[in-house]
Amino acid sequence: MKKLSVAILGFGTVGQGVRDVLCNHQDRLKEIAGIPVEISTILIKHPEKHHTKAPHVRFTTDFQSVLDDPAIDVVFEAIVGKEPAYSYLRQCIIAGKHVITANKEMFQAHGQELKQLAAEYDVGIGFDATTAGGIPIIQTIQHLLQVNKINRVQAILNGTSNYILTDMRENGSTFDDALLKAQSLGYAESDPTNDIEGYDALYKLKILCELIFDEQPVWEHVKCVGISQISAKAIKQEAASGNRIKHIAEIALTEGAITANIAPKSVSAEHPLYAIEGVNNAIHMKTDIIGDLTLSGPGAGAFPTASAMVEDFCHIVNKHMKAEGKVTTIAYS
Amino acid sequence: MKKLSVAILGFGTVGQGVRDVLCNHQDRLKEIAGIPVEISTILIKHPEKHHTKAPHVRFTTDFQSVLDDPAIDVVFEAIVGKEPAYSYLRQCIIAGKHVITANKEMFQAHGQELKQLAAEYDVGIGFDATTAGGIPIIQTIQHLLQVNKINRVQAILNGTSNYILTDMRENGSTFDDALLKAQSLGYAESDPTNDIEGYDALYKLKILCELIFDEQPVWEHVKCVGISQISAKAIKQEAASGNRIKHIAEIALTEGAITANIAPKSVSAEHPLYAIEGVNNAIHMKTDIIGDLTLSGPGAGAFPTASAMVEDFCHIVNKHMKAEGKVTTIAYS
Repeated sequence: MKKLSVAILGFGTVGQGVRDVLCNHQDRLKEIAGIPVEISTILIKHPEKHHTKAPHVRFTTDFQSVLDDPAIDVVFEAIVGKEPAYSYLRQCIIAGKHVITANKEMFQAHGQELKQLAAEYDVGIGFDATTAGGIPIIQTIQHLLQVNKINRVQAILNGTSNYILTDMRENGSTFDDALLKAQSLGYAESDPTNDIEGYDALYKLKILCELIFDEQPVWEHVKCVGISQISAKAIKQEAASGNRIKHIAEIALTEGAITANIAPKSVSAEHPLYAIEGVNNAIHMKTDIIGDLTLSGPGAGAFPTASAMVEDFCHIVNKHMKAEGKVTTIAYS
Repeated sequence: MKKLSVAILGFGTVGQGVRDVLCNHQDRLKEIAGIPVEISTILIKHPEKHHTKAPHVRFTTDFQSVLDDPAIDVVFEAIVGKEPAYSYLRQCIIAGKHVITANKEMFQAHGQELKQLAAEYDVGIGFDATTAGGIPIIQTIQHLLQVNKINRVQAILNGTSNYILTDMRENGSTFDDALLKAQSLGYAESDPTNDIEGYDALYKLKILCELIFDEQPVWEHVKCVGISQISAKAIKQEAASGNRIKHIAEIALTEGAITANIAPKSVSAEHPLYAIEGVNNAIHMKTDIIGDLTLSGPGAGAFPTASAMVEDFCHIVNKHMKAEGKVTTIAYS
């Protein structure tokens, strides 16, 4: 095997970000893999939209041709929504391909099954980009869990909501004005429901919950409250007392039971999430040995998300492909 | 090979913490390694101090017997000061043993050489516990650097200094009173020079600099300023303007040159290190793709440090020992 071939499924902002990061890091990736890493195929939906011609890259609308190509070792999935992403990844895993996804909506629903399937077929599965964008939260948690138990997580997982709340407080904007601003800046979708009603945070919280506790609470009993009902007046009142309203997603293990909560909360300056502003995300964890840890950074964006996916790729190369003897050994210490 | 044998060099608070974490995680470690992990030998200096008898654990004052024992695969080093720690680790690496250290003073001086030696002899070297205690900063940076360039780091790396500055601001204490309190709580040594004059932060900054930039600035030209000259009045004045004085260690790559700075600085509420209080540490990084990332948590303590060392151990088991075929494959995904 003279090169490592990858495919990208979906070529929206995240898929294009993956393409760019892979192309811009050829030397580094070759150093890590020991052989060149090449984008072999990109699966697109609307061929008429993509006029970019890239030498050596095949653009196709035919998923079967990706699946049937034995030269493709790793598949990056950057499709929106559960289907066809889930079916595609399932088939890729069964075909022995390593997979990396940024698709939180799909992964919160099918993540556990895909992880089990990947273990069964002995392929790598990367999903760090599903939660908190560029913050390497999944790999950090996997790393910590080797020694620590995590008892509670409080997190800001939706950058759009946090941007809106920050703008309302700093500029005295109404909710509607702040939402319009978020949309004009590209932070919020034209249909912002998932962000402002808390569903996006809920998806990510489910992925964290599965990873940390290996089980889920009865989600039907968990009220998911977004930020759409927050008034400028409430924000102003809290600010006058030195507090900030933050949209906080929380899971905890208390007396053997998992509890979850997703709602806006007023936090004081002493709270670890108080200082997280704008489109940033943050995860605050209580662990049994280390104590409290907080990670914060950009929660979304094509490049942070693509970076997280390519970091997953490096991890899979190191952990799975080297063991398979498919790639040579490594410079990275 | 039916079990994985480890030795601990040094049996002060950190060494004892490593013993406790290894003993309390037998099941988890067995799951990761595929075989039982056993403490074979503990190197002590003063046998009269250690009356604990543990079955199957040999206490010895004779390093040569650790070195000569081919059954010992991994060595945890928790000695204070450069020597004999450096000589011991050097010999262990040459003997083909994987090594894990928490010794920042030794590692800032000899880390580069030991890393090269470990690469040459194809053994793992873990040093996450040398910097920022329980915060998994070294592995996170190694992970990020696969894809990102880090252009600047600003960090609070000395928990004692941060505790003293926090106490002075919150309680109006003088520097001397706050130092006494830190000493009585076990945060500061009886000789607090390394903490309060900035040398401890300097050690850790050198380790980060080597890791991130793979080179060092001319340290003789970098003024290392601690917190011992800060008056209660200065703290009070800054607090009145809403600012806090923090002891900040900084490295940056500007126009191809590495600059470094270690000094107390006044930061406003918008600064990512403003909210880091008490004995906590934090590292704020500017990266080229992801953007700004911050990690914060406990910077010291026997258990956070031991936890970081055992996480390094898990990483070495996964990365090095499985490749050698010494341990069976893995449950951890």
